[in-house]
Amino acid sequence: MEDFSLKVIAHIQNDFTEKFGIPRQSGLANAVVSRIVFEPEFRNDDALRGIADFSHLWLIWQFSRAIREDWSPTVRPPRLGGNTRLGVFATRSPFRPNPLGLSSVRLLGTEKTEKGTVLLVAGADLMDGTPIFDIKPYIPYCDCHNDAAGGFTDTAGDFLLQVDFPEALLTKLPQEKQAGLLEILSHDPRPSYQNDPERVYGLAYGIWDIRFTVKDNTLQVQEVTER
Amino acid sequence: MEDFSLKVIAHIQNDFTEKFGIPRQSGLANAVVSRIVFEPEFRNDDALRGIADFSHLWLIWQFSRAIREDWSPTVRPPRLGGNTRLGVFATRSPFRPNPLGLSSVRLLGTEKTEKGTVLLVAGADLMDGTPIFDIKPYIPYCDCHNDAAGGFTDTAGDFLLQVDFPEALLTKLPQEKQAGLLEILSHDPRPSYQNDPERVYGLAYGIWDIRFTVKDNTLQVQEVTER
Repeated sequence: MEDFSLKVIAHIQNDFTEKFGIPRQSGLANAVVSRIVFEPEFRNDDALRGIADFSHLWLIWQFSRAIREDWSPTVRPPRLGGNTRLGVFATRSPFRPNPLGLSSVRLLGTEKTEKGTVLLVAGADLMDGTPIFDIKPYIPYCDCHNDAAGGFTDTAGDFLLQVDFPEALLTKLPQEKQAGLLEILSHDPRPSYQNDPERVYGLAYGIWDIRFTVKDNTLQVQEVTER
Repeated sequence: MEDFSLKVIAHIQNDFTEKFGIPRQSGLANAVVSRIVFEPEFRNDDALRGIADFSHLWLIWQFSRAIREDWSPTVRPPRLGGNTRLGVFATRSPFRPNPLGLSSVRLLGTEKTEKGTVLLVAGADLMDGTPIFDIKPYIPYCDCHNDAAGGFTDTAGDFLLQVDFPEALLTKLPQEKQAGLLEILSHDPRPSYQNDPERVYGLAYGIWDIRFTVKDNTLQVQEVTER
């Protein structure tokens, strides 16, 4: 069996300018809007005919920062604290034999631009610039399994943090960016296995650097600067 | 941006020995059991550690019979009768820029074999021998969208046929194969745009050839032969 080569059809554009802070799965930060910009070869409005009738899309994409020559059979999911090893096929870890990501996003609409028609989506967990290989409609009758058992993901729930973001700092961002950032902070962007109340963490979001501490269940924003 | 090459990690084995008769989406023929056999390089039980805690898996696979050099922006979904053109990204058609398939299947269990540990799954819509690139757990909290709108797939529902399968013909198959075949026949394996009550259709299922007619909403099995 031959290897098989994929074409990049599009890239995503959003404010996730670094890996740190990207939601751990799709759908967690629904106030964050991403733009899907097609490569010149695939800028064709006919290819999108009917897509607006779907509320959600699947993206198949490349974990472009996670490409390794060899693969490891086990990984340590952050949700389990980083100490428990699970088989790579029992996780959505980027470090897999083929570094393909799979995310469902909400389709907000389309926009005509000088780079062709762009898709606007919410809830993506892809870093800015990530290459996309395929876009498919989400088909509820075969994709939604209400009875599914989610293994460790059922119990290792996301604890939401209280976010204390002083008004004077929050308003350094334009209003349309604020809700997304608040959502990301509430999902606790620290590495799961870190819990040092003294430490000041940094998060890049768009053109901003956010500095914060976390004590008990409250995230306290300390500083917002523009890069 | 460079093209990107994938490794085949496994192949599927089942009774869908030809394209005709394969369910149009995953989850429609749940009585059909498929086996996922890993390639030698990926036969490693550690890579499956924890997978049994999930009830469903995603398969990312190759539409290996649908590889074309160029792509067409529009396709004609069989569910719409084969006459309506939709954008390829608004369908799950195999004829897409990258011929990647995406299917959720139910994980039934594992089996130790001389080809390593094999995954047993139900509901696959992959033809026998299809190469698989990735296996991921289905994570209900981010993959299941109860509120999703499914475009044309919401209304172009599958009509189930009555199946008249004479006992003397049905028992030519071993008992464990019968329910799967009945399910496939009830989903109307004819091309959507054909409706000729006189025509005798043929369907290959495992080592058997099934011949049938369809009149009104009843499928009448005429003959079962072993190849």
